[in-house]
Amino acid sequence: MIQAGVIGATGYAGAKVVSLLCAHHQAHIAYLGSHSYVGQTFSSVYPAMLGVCDQVLQEDDLVKAASQCDVVFLALPAGIAAAEVTQEILANTVIIDLGADFRLHDGAVYQAWYKKPAPTSEMLAQAVYGLPELHRDAIKRAQVIANPGCYTTTSILSLAPVMHLVKPQSIIIDALSGVSGAGRGEKVASLFCECDESAKAYGVANHRHTPEIEQELSLVAGSPVMVQFTPHLVPMKNGILATCTAELLPGVTENEIASAYQKRYGDEPFIRLYPSASAVESRFFTDTNTVGIGWTVDSRTGRLVIVGSLDNLYKGAAGQAVENMNIRFGFDETEALAKFSL
Amino acid sequence: MIQAGVIGATGYAGAKVVSLLCAHHQAHIAYLGSHSYVGQTFSSVYPAMLGVCDQVLQEDDLVKAASQCDVVFLALPAGIAAAEVTQEILANTVIIDLGADFRLHDGAVYQAWYKKPAPTSEMLAQAVYGLPELHRDAIKRAQVIANPGCYTTTSILSLAPVMHLVKPQSIIIDALSGVSGAGRGEKVASLFCECDESAKAYGVANHRHTPEIEQELSLVAGSPVMVQFTPHLVPMKNGILATCTAELLPGVTENEIASAYQKRYGDEPFIRLYPSASAVESRFFTDTNTVGIGWTVDSRTGRLVIVGSLDNLYKGAAGQAVENMNIRFGFDETEALAKFSL
Amino acid sequence: MIQAGVIGATGYAGAKVVSLLCAHHQAHIAYLGSHSYVGQTFSSVYPAMLGVCDQVLQEDDLVKAASQCDVVFLALPAGIAAAEVTQEILANTVIIDLGADFRLHDGAVYQAWYKKPAPTSEMLAQAVYGLPELHRDAIKRAQVIANPGCYTTTSILSLAPVMHLVKPQSIIIDALSGVSGAGRGEKVASLFCECDESAKAYGVANHRHTPEIEQELSLVAGSPVMVQFTPHLVPMKNGILATCTAELLPGVTENEIASAYQKRYGDEPFIRLYPSASAVESRFFTDTNTVGIGWTVDSRTGRLVIVGSLDNLYKGAAGQAVENMNIRFGFDETEALAKFSL
Amino acid sequence: MIQAGVIGATGYAGAKVVSLLCAHHQAHIAYLGSHSYVGQTFSSVYPAMLGVCDQVLQEDDLVKAASQCDVVFLALPAGIAAAEVTQEILANTVIIDLGADFRLHDGAVYQAWYKKPAPTSEMLAQAVYGLPELHRDAIKRAQVIANPGCYTTTSILSLAPVMHLVKPQSIIIDALSGVSGAGRGEKVASLFCECDESAKAYGVANHRHTPEIEQELSLVAGSPVMVQFTPHLVPMKNGILATCTAELLPGVTENEIASAYQKRYGDEPFIRLYPSASAVESRFFTDTNTVGIGWTVDSRTGRLVIVGSLDNLYKGAAGQAVENMNIRFGFDETEALAKFSL
Repeated sequence: MIQAGVIGATGYAGAKVVSLLCAHHQAHIAYLGSHSYVGQTFSSVYPAMLGVCDQVLQEDDLVKAASQCDVVFLALPAGIAAAEVTQEILANTVIIDLGADFRLHDGAVYQAWYKKPAPTSEMLAQAVYGLPELHRDAIKRAQVIANPGCYTTTSILSLAPVMHLVKPQSIIIDALSGVSGAGRGEKVASLFCECDESAKAYGVANHRHTPEIEQELSLVAGSPVMVQFTPHLVPMKNGILATCTAELLPGVTENEIASAYQKRYGDEPFIRLYPSASAVESRFFTDTNTVGIGWTVDSRTGRLVIVGSLDNLYKGAAGQAVENMNIRFGFDETEALAKFSL
Repeated sequence: MIQAGVIGATGYAGAKVVSLLCAHHQAHIAYLGSHSYVGQTFSSVYPAMLGVCDQVLQEDDLVKAASQCDVVFLALPAGIAAAEVTQEILANTVIIDLGADFRLHDGAVYQAWYKKPAPTSEMLAQAVYGLPELHRDAIKRAQVIANPGCYTTTSILSLAPVMHLVKPQSIIIDALSGVSGAGRGEKVASLFCECDESAKAYGVANHRHTPEIEQELSLVAGSPVMVQFTPHLVPMKNGILATCTAELLPGVTENEIASAYQKRYGDEPFIRLYPSASAVESRFFTDTNTVGIGWTVDSRTGRLVIVGSLDNLYKGAAGQAVENMNIRFGFDETEALAKFSL
Repeated sequence: MIQAGVIGATGYAGAKVVSLLCAHHQAHIAYLGSHSYVGQTFSSVYPAMLGVCDQVLQEDDLVKAASQCDVVFLALPAGIAAAEVTQEILANTVIIDLGADFRLHDGAVYQAWYKKPAPTSEMLAQAVYGLPELHRDAIKRAQVIANPGCYTTTSILSLAPVMHLVKPQSIIIDALSGVSGAGRGEKVASLFCECDESAKAYGVANHRHTPEIEQELSLVAGSPVMVQFTPHLVPMKNGILATCTAELLPGVTENEIASAYQKRYGDEPFIRLYPSASAVESRFFTDTNTVGIGWTVDSRTGRLVIVGSLDNLYKGAAGQAVENMNIRFGFDETEALAKFSL
Repeated sequence: MIQAGVIGATGYAGAKVVSLLCAHHQAHIAYLGSHSYVGQTFSSVYPAMLGVCDQVLQEDDLVKAASQCDVVFLALPAGIAAAEVTQEILANTVIIDLGADFRLHDGAVYQAWYKKPAPTSEMLAQAVYGLPELHRDAIKRAQVIANPGCYTTTSILSLAPVMHLVKPQSIIIDALSGVSGAGRGEKVASLFCECDESAKAYGVANHRHTPEIEQELSLVAGSPVMVQFTPHLVPMKNGILATCTAELLPGVTENEIASAYQKRYGDEPFIRLYPSASAVESRFFTDTNTVGIGWTVDSRTGRLVIVGSLDNLYKGAAGQAVENMNIRFGFDETEALAKFSL
C-alpha cells in the first residue's frame, strides 16, 4: 500500500483522481490539497462522495504533501508545477503532473505557447511523457511523469501507428470536447446556458495542445511534423472525439493500415479498435480508461480519416494518471481502472 | 396572397415550413400532405401549434396539391420528387424541393450518390439551385427551386468568397450537426439515449451532401473542386457548425480575405460576418435564417480556417425555402423570417 | 414611438427584453444599463445580436435612464429597485420591474422572505402586480408595474380559474425550471457540468416565489391560501413546468372545471388550454409568450392535477414585461411577442 | 461460479444486467436472449462492449435458458413472464424478473392496471418483492424475485422509514425520470428532438408503478395507503428524483424523523442519507447502486418534503437485480456493484 496525495483535488481532473484512488486496492489517500476549499471536507465539495471520501482538504502545499506521500498528483494551472517541483521533492516522491509544465521537452517551446517560465532543462530531462502506449518502459523508472493532455492523448494514439503511411505535413485534426475540459472555474463561458444546445470552435491556430501533439508525432515519424489542430466545444459533459484527416502516401493499402494498428495496439489493455471511422461514438468510452479508434480510407480523395475517442477526465486525465502510477509502482496496470461501461 | 402547399408536412423540415407560413402575411396554407398522419390535424402531431394550425392532413398527393396551390414545398425522401414532378405540374405551380432530387445538375452524379433514378435532363435543366446568395436572379424566374442541404448551405457560403485565394484541392470540411438533421423517423440511432452525451462522425467518405458542395464550389472557382467532407452528430437539437480548412495561396493577406467576404456578403440580409473563427457559436443562429461566418489565418501553417454556422431547419431547410418563395414571388425576401433571436 | 430603457440589460432577463424591443415597432431603445459591462457594446456581450443591437452599455443609472425614457425596465437583484425608485422618477417614467421588490403588497412579508428593506407603503400602493390575465385594467393605469416571477406566473395562471373548486389549503406545487432561471452569474452551481444530466430540488420550504403565489391565489379565492411549493432544476435552458395538485371539493365535475378554465381564459391571447395534464410539454412554449395549461382529474384519489408551462425568460419574465408595456401604452398587446414557435 | 442468463438482453435494462455481469467474479453469462437481434453479437448492438461481450444473441427462449442457467434475468414487456414462468422452470432456476408481472401480490390488481392476465395465485405466492432493504431475508430463499420498478424503489425507500410519522393518505409523489426509463423502443416520443430541452408529466393518475408503491407502503404502514403519483420526463439519460410530500402527524419532531431514517438505513450498503431535501442531486448516483435520500420539514405548512434519488437503470433496475442475485446466492451483496462514482 502506497501513500498518495493530490494537489488541486477539487478541480474536475483532481477530483476524478481522488475518486479513482478511493477504489484502488494498493494506494491510500494521505493528502488532499485545494486552493479554494481548505478546511472543508472533500465530500462537501463533491457530495456524490459523501461517506466515501470525507477527508478534510488542506492547503495546496506540495512540500508537505511530498513529505507524506510516495506519489503526488498535481492538477494545477500552468506554471505552478514548473516553479514548485524541486530535486528535493523528487528525492522522496514520484510526481505525476496532470498539467502541461513537464510535457514539452524543449522549454523554449513551452514558454512560447504558455507565456510562463519553463522548468529548468535539468528538471525537464528527468520528466517522461506519460503516454503508456508509447513510453511504458520509461514510465517505470520516471520520477516526474508528465501526464498528457486529453486532446493530445486522443490525437497521438489515433495517428501514431500510421505516421509512416501518410504525408506528415498533411494532418488536419478537428476535435470535439465535452465541457468538463474547460474545468470547474466560474466562467460565464462555462455556464449551462452558454454551452447547452451549441457548438463552437475555440483556440483556432493557437491551442496549447498543438506542440505536444507535434512533439510526439515527430518522435514517432522520425521527422518534424506540423499539424492543423482545431478544438471544438460541444454540449456534453465528458468525452473527446478527434477526427484526423491525412493524405495517404501513394500505394498504401487498407491492409497495411489495419496491420499497422494491430501491430502497435494488439496487446494494449486500454485501446479498442473499431471497424470504421463512423463506428466510434464518444459515449462508448465514458467513465472508462479505454480509447476507441476507427478509420476509413476515402479512395476518391486519397485521404485517410481516423476517428479517436476517449473520456477526457479518465484516459484523457485522471485515469491515465492512475495508470501511470500503476506502471510506475509495479501494480497491475488496470487496477482501479474501468475498461468498459454501459 | 398566394396559396401554398406542403407535401411531407409532418417531418421536421416540412413542419418548420408550415410554422413559418403560419406567420407569413402573403401566403396562405391551402394544402398539407403527410405520409403517416392522414386525417389527423397538424396540431395533433405538433401540439405546439394547437390553435395555430389545426388543418387536417391530406395524402401526400402532389398533383392534387399543385392543382390548388401557387407554390408547393416538397419535404420528401430522395427519389419521390424525381418521379412525381412533371411538366404539367410545373405549368401551374412553382415547386420548392427541400430534398436532393433537383440539386445536382448532372443526373449521373445524382444516381451515383443516391442510387435512384434522377429526373430527366429536361426537368433538371429547369431547376435552379436555391441558394439566394449565389443564384438570386435565377431563382426569381425558376419553376423548380432545388433548396440546398443544410451542410451544403453552410459549407458553400463559408468558402465561396475565398475560392480564388485557396488551393482548391486542399479543402477539408469537418461539420457538426444537431440531431434534427436526422429527421423524425423512428430509428434507434435517433433516440435521446443514443445521442445524448455523445459525439460521432458518420457518412465518412460518402455523405451525399459532398457532390452538392463540390458542384457549387466548382462553379465559383471556375475549375473542378473536390473536398473532404466529414459530418458529425453532436447532442443538440438544431444547428450546423462547419469548420473549413484550406491552404492559402502564397502571399494572400488577411486584408484580401476580409475584402473578399465584405464584397460578396456586404449587402446580404441573412449573412453576418464575425471577427474570427472562434467567435461563431451555433446557438447564435438558432431559430433564425441567419448564417454566421468567421475566419482565422494560421500563419504558422499557412492555412485558412473558416467556421460557418446556421440553424439546419431554418436557413438550412425551411427558412431558406420560404426565402426562395419570397424571392420567386416578389415578396420582401425577409418576410416571415427571423434575422436574430436571443 | 416611445423611448425605452433597460437597467440590468446584460442578465438573461434584461437581455431578452432588449431582444424583444429590437423587434418592436413602437418602442425605441434609448438607454441600456449594465453593472459589469459598462462601455462595451451589447453585441459584444451577446454576439447573437451583432449588427442588431450594437449600442454601448452605460451605468445602471436609473435616474439618468428615467430622464431619457418613457418606460424603464428593471432587471436587478432584490433590494435595488426598492431603494432607487422614487416619486420623482415615477413622475416622468413608467417603471416595469422584473424583480420582486414591488410584487408583495405587504412590505413586512417582503422583508421576511427577502431580508431587505421593502419599498415604503406609499410606493407599494402605486404598484400593480403585472399579471395581465388578472390585472389588465389596473396595468393600463399603473406607474409601477411589478412583473411577476416565472414560477409564480405559471402557478397562479394554472390554479386561478379553479380556486373555488378545490380545498385551498391542499395545494402542492412541484415545479421544474430550466437553468436560465438561475441567471447569468458566475456560480459553480450553474456550470454546464454541474447541471447537465441531473435534477434536484432547491429552495425547499423557503423559495421566495411562495408568498407571491399565495398573495394572488388568496385574492382570487377570497380567503388566505397557503401552498406547498417545491421548485426543481432540470437540465434544459428555458422553461417552467408546474405540476399543481389539489383536493377537489366534493361533487365537482370535470365539466365544471372545463367551464371554469374556458370562462376565464377563452379570450386570452397568450393562454392555450390542453386536453389533459400529460398533453403539456415545456418545449411547446419555448421562445413564445404563451402559457399552456392542461388538467386531469384523478377520480381514484379525488384530486385535480394541473400542469402549467411557459418559457421562463419570455412569459415568465421579459415577454410579460413587454406585454405589460404594450398594455400600459395602449399598443396591441401582442406586438413583438410570439404566440407560437416550432 | 454460477451460470446466468438474460432474456431481453438488448433493451436498456437487460443490457445493463449484461454489463454488470461481465464484471462479476462469481457469475458467468451462459445465455443471452433477444427479440430483435437474434444471431447478432451483443457487441454489435452495443459497440461499447466490443471485445468485452461478443456473445451471440439467441432467441428469447426461457425454457432453453433455464435449462442452462442457475439464474435467469427477465427484462421483458408486461405479460410475458406471467405466461412463461412455470413450476418446471422454477425447479431448476431462480428467476429475477425486472418486469412487473410478479410484483403485485394481488393478481386482480395486476390485471386492473396492466390489462393482462396475472400469474396464477400459486405462482404469485412464490414470488418475493425484491427490495433488499425491506425483504432481504425472504429474497435469500426466493425462487422468483420480482425486481421493483425504478420509481417504486425510489418512492418506497424514501417514505418507508417515516410512514408512522405522516398521514398515510396525504402523500403526493412528483417524480422526475431520465429518458432511458422509456426504453429502447423506436418511438417518436423517445427521439432526441422530442425530449431534449423539454419537461412533461405523463401517466397522470394512471401510472402503473402506483399500485406497487401503495402495496409496499401499506405493508410498512400496516394500513391501506393511497398515493398521488405523478411521473415526469426530463431531458437526461438516467436518474430518478422523487419529491415526496406528506403531512406530518401532530407533534412530530425533526429528531424523530432523523432517528427513523438512521434506524432503518444505518447499516444499509446502498443507501446514503443527505442533510436536506435540497442536498440530493440525481447525478450523484449515476452509474451506482446507491440511493440518496434527504428531507426537510416545512414548519410553516406542517409538511415533510423528502427527496429520493437513484439511477433508474442501476438501483432502479439492473443493479438491484444483480444485488438480488448476490443475496439469493450468498455472494457479497455489493459484488460487481458500484457504491459511488464521480
